[in-house]
Amino acid sequence: MATIRAVYRVRGRPDEAERTARFIALEQTVEVPETLVGPAQRVGEVVSIVPLRGASEITIDYDASLASGQLPQLLNLVYGNVSMRPGTRLADLVLPEELVARFPGPRFGVEGVRALLGVFGRPLLCTALKPRGAHDAEFASIAREFALGGGDVLKDDHNLVDADAGAFRRRLRVVRDAIAEANAATGRFCLYLPHVGAPVDRLEEYLDAVILLGLRGVLVPSLLLGLDTVRALAQRHRLVVMAHPSFTGAFYVDRRHGIEPGLLLGTIARLAGVDASILAHRGGRFPATARDCASIARRLREPLGSLRPSLPVPGGGVRLEHLPDLARRYGRDAVILIAGALLGLGPDLRGETARFVDRIRLRFGETLAPPQP
Amino acid sequence: MATIRAVYRVRGRPDEAERTARFIALEQTVEVPETLVGPAQRVGEVVSIVPLRGASEITIDYDASLASGQLPQLLNLVYGNVSMRPGTRLADLVLPEELVARFPGPRFGVEGVRALLGVFGRPLLCTALKPRGAHDAEFASIAREFALGGGDVLKDDHNLVDADAGAFRRRLRVVRDAIAEANAATGRFCLYLPHVGAPVDRLEEYLDAVILLGLRGVLVPSLLLGLDTVRALAQRHRLVVMAHPSFTGAFYVDRRHGIEPGLLLGTIARLAGVDASILAHRGGRFPATARDCASIARRLREPLGSLRPSLPVPGGGVRLEHLPDLARRYGRDAVILIAGALLGLGPDLRGETARFVDRIRLRFGETLAPPQP
Repeated sequence: MATIRAVYRVRGRPDEAERTARFIALEQTVEVPETLVGPAQRVGEVVSIVPLRGASEITIDYDASLASGQLPQLLNLVYGNVSMRPGTRLADLVLPEELVARFPGPRFGVEGVRALLGVFGRPLLCTALKPRGAHDAEFASIAREFALGGGDVLKDDHNLVDADAGAFRRRLRVVRDAIAEANAATGRFCLYLPHVGAPVDRLEEYLDAVILLGLRGVLVPSLLLGLDTVRALAQRHRLVVMAHPSFTGAFYVDRRHGIEPGLLLGTIARLAGVDASILAHRGGRFPATARDCASIARRLREPLGSLRPSLPVPGGGVRLEHLPDLARRYGRDAVILIAGALLGLGPDLRGETARFVDRIRLRFGETLAPPQP
Repeated sequence: MATIRAVYRVRGRPDEAERTARFIALEQTVEVPETLVGPAQRVGEVVSIVPLRGASEITIDYDASLASGQLPQLLNLVYGNVSMRPGTRLADLVLPEELVARFPGPRFGVEGVRALLGVFGRPLLCTALKPRGAHDAEFASIAREFALGGGDVLKDDHNLVDADAGAFRRRLRVVRDAIAEANAATGRFCLYLPHVGAPVDRLEEYLDAVILLGLRGVLVPSLLLGLDTVRALAQRHRLVVMAHPSFTGAFYVDRRHGIEPGLLLGTIARLAGVDASILAHRGGRFPATARDCASIARRLREPLGSLRPSLPVPGGGVRLEHLPDLARRYGRDAVILIAGALLGLGPDLRGETARFVDRIRLRFGETLAPPQP
């Protein structure tokens, strides 16, 4: 019988660990006292308890059928109620192939995004349209200059939220036209990902606008829309999905609690069909650790059933001088997100973009193919 | 101009607080360096910085229009990117009436649920159908006995997830019939709330089943489905919405980070249209604090624009002997959720339920009216 293996790091005295392990195994599956468990109940099985300093590593196997092949229920199973138990961290998760197979996963993934752009062998460069409050014409100008400079991916800032679908369409059209003009001049394909942060019951209206305008992807704030909303969206539409980590930090900045960020922004994001997952890079505005960044990048690209690997997108205050560190840490299959710093370099956005892409080429080389937008 | 006031408790040295405050104000609104902010940008305004022990209380006013009248964007604005900054807690939130007015809020609320049941003047008693793995006939038996004993609300365990909509319908029908039979015998209306934890793109199919079966409410795992998915569901359907806190703990068990639980399970839940919000009671299986419980109960029932007050549902290991404490802490406008303990009292569920309701009556009295299902 296939099992889902969950590893929890739980704070507390070693002599309490066995009780805690049993508590979690019951709480996450049947949520009744031990005495009420009958043979029909599939309680989690405590596989091992390893004492650590001031904590224990508890491994529990769950019958895979308990996830019902559904993302909300998988999360409920591995971290639903225990999220309310202090000092309880979901540190690792091993999913059986037959469960992973229930999720199509990223539609494009690393290779699909590369084929779309026709850019191989090096990290992609991404910037953001910002700040909120700027006129559409200013956004169009940023888009044009970035694309003319050879930038690969342009995303909306995740604070860009339009008053209604009409304003959303108008803004997107202006930006799309600016990029199309630049693409025609360069012969390349700069991919534009508008931020779709609309109310979920109007999401389809916004996605229709994206598709009707011929755009090929979106930026989604996964946890704000709901991870399963992203999964449904990615399954329904042939769009590149880049995920923004807004609101996710509560799950991982406390290292004693929550969910290991590689699982949340990597493994779970891939189940949700995310092609590219933004993370706070350690040298930027948020004090991310090197270990967390490495874990997210690894989870996004490691084998996971037959799901495509996805692109890590280190950002959150990345600057030109981070390039060697980024190159070393993420390698070629990544998207480097440099937004505020690039916009702040001065009026010559086109030139600065070209210089940045040149620096990437110098380090990695580059193979180009005709874009397939 | 209307403003959203957010109060953050931020750890760090007092002499860093001003920089931190400015960081948050920029990060949450325009996400660009100070130098790129022009007159068109509506940056958060730092209202005050109060030094605490090893921390500061930072109050920021945001232009209310930045929330765009949308729940995902409101959460993005007040706790999106700063969720990734360690030691940063959203401690309070004051929403302007014009923003609150964009949300219909709870459709039933305290009085609506009471009118449905015809029970006034005392807390309601709720139990859960569990454990997962039991046969439909066993669930039906629990439902019947609980309703015959005078129980008010019956909810599915949040681990009950059916293989498909067909199995869901079959189970619900059996439980519904058992309760209907009991209701006919008692002349009362025991409200059944099936757990709707389906994939979001199949949610409507499940909700249609609920409605076609004549059921009047649902249990939803808000954060697992997405808070805005719950908001949309509550707006679309005339159903009592009880929210389950599965997966929410990562936001509040670390008191130095995340979101104050009264805001998440109270204020924000009400914006999402939640009529009754389950919380871990302090005497139960989870080490909730009295302060958190009180805060959630207060936020659910305090004035919030013209939104109806909602019912706190203390649970998570509540036992008969907690009743005096529950009565004192939550008062009459609450739902007492006693599940495993009630089911574990022995074979006489009907009698035990009746004894529990009697104890509630003894303490609070009771006014009955004809149920209006």
